[in-house]
Amino acid sequence: MSNKKEKSGFFISFEGSEGSGKTTQINRLSIHLEDTDHETIITREPGGTEIGETIRHLLKHDSSGDDMFPETELLLFAASRAQLVREVIKPALDENISVVCDRFLDSSTVYQGAARKIASDPIQIINQFAVGDLMPDLTIVLDVPVTEGLERIKHRYSDLPDRMEEENVNFYELVREGYLYLAETMPERFVVLDGTQSKKNIEGKIWQIVQDRFLLD
Amino acid sequence: MSNKKEKSGFFISFEGSEGSGKTTQINRLSIHLEDTDHETIITREPGGTEIGETIRHLLKHDSSGDDMFPETELLLFAASRAQLVREVIKPALDENISVVCDRFLDSSTVYQGAARKIASDPIQIINQFAVGDLMPDLTIVLDVPVTEGLERIKHRYSDLPDRMEEENVNFYELVREGYLYLAETMPERFVVLDGTQSKKNIEGKIWQIVQDRFLLD
Repeated sequence: MSNKKEKSGFFISFEGSEGSGKTTQINRLSIHLEDTDHETIITREPGGTEIGETIRHLLKHDSSGDDMFPETELLLFAASRAQLVREVIKPALDENISVVCDRFLDSSTVYQGAARKIASDPIQIINQFAVGDLMPDLTIVLDVPVTEGLERIKHRYSDLPDRMEEENVNFYELVREGYLYLAETMPERFVVLDGTQSKKNIEGKIWQIVQDRFLLD
Repeated sequence: MSNKKEKSGFFISFEGSEGSGKTTQINRLSIHLEDTDHETIITREPGGTEIGETIRHLLKHDSSGDDMFPETELLLFAASRAQLVREVIKPALDENISVVCDRFLDSSTVYQGAARKIASDPIQIINQFAVGDLMPDLTIVLDVPVTEGLERIKHRYSDLPDRMEEENVNFYELVREGYLYLAETMPERFVVLDGTQSKKNIEGKIWQIVQDRFLLD
């Protein structure tokens, strides 16, 4: 974990339930970074590479997706992550380019672990294997009540089957609790923000946090 | 490990380098089993399920395959395996149907471990996670000298890119040694057969082994 890096790439992951506003805030953060001449790439999980996008498609929209076992799902997320780390994230950081990632390894811990009840030990080992020695410098969790998050995304996928979004409220309660628990146990890496505030407010807070942690001397 | 099971499904995996004759011998074994009224399904890795066949395609023929990292590869094989075990193999065995599988977890140990040099510990843990408590009752390794195996498959993929078959002789030497080492350390599960014998000879030996171990009282 490194605070106050200057002139070097930093790695920020965004986490949160469906409908928590990650994409909006990632885009707004990237504009602040661009406007202050910080070279940054935005990527996402699963996906972010050609191989990863194929895996994303299989995970999210494959017609056989309903029959996918949780163990298969975990290993596919990890495969996408292993490729993203080695093909995109590490090379960028090595060239002092910062990376903002929509979801990273904490999504596996929370979705497959806390919510789908796969045991914690194999998840940690598989996560570790996938990322090698790379961890985010900062992880921002956008926290919204489950019903509000689901309400927000209701209209998003009106005709697109997406098994991740079809889970029930109970599942998303476990996801939310999972994130809050992780943040509590790793306060040096995590920041939890109330995602029910205005977009502008959240944007301002995130930019302040990023400046404090990485850009100000 | 169970010897001399009667009237219950047994699980046999075939292993060996490219060109070792696995497909031929699996087909011949299945004919013997059919002719003696033993309900059997034949499957393969990676693949054997709709999800697994998509993963197989990604692993073997994807245009981006050249850029795939060994860690990604290992996790994709494991994902295919996790799905195959839960969707096909376990349900079959539970109904007393036998399963013959073209490659199983030992392929990961040998190809990604012995040959691609991924550390043994994570491979074992990821394999274990993928298969749960399921192991083959019998694993038959068809052993052929590397140059002979490569000579046999030269004409097979004349115009199809297949990264697995494009590895060099040195890689396949490590694969061969890897199998022989596994067989030496687990003699109760493994049988190694000289794959340079005539197809008829090998067929006879395999059928004798299967009868001795599973079908005779």
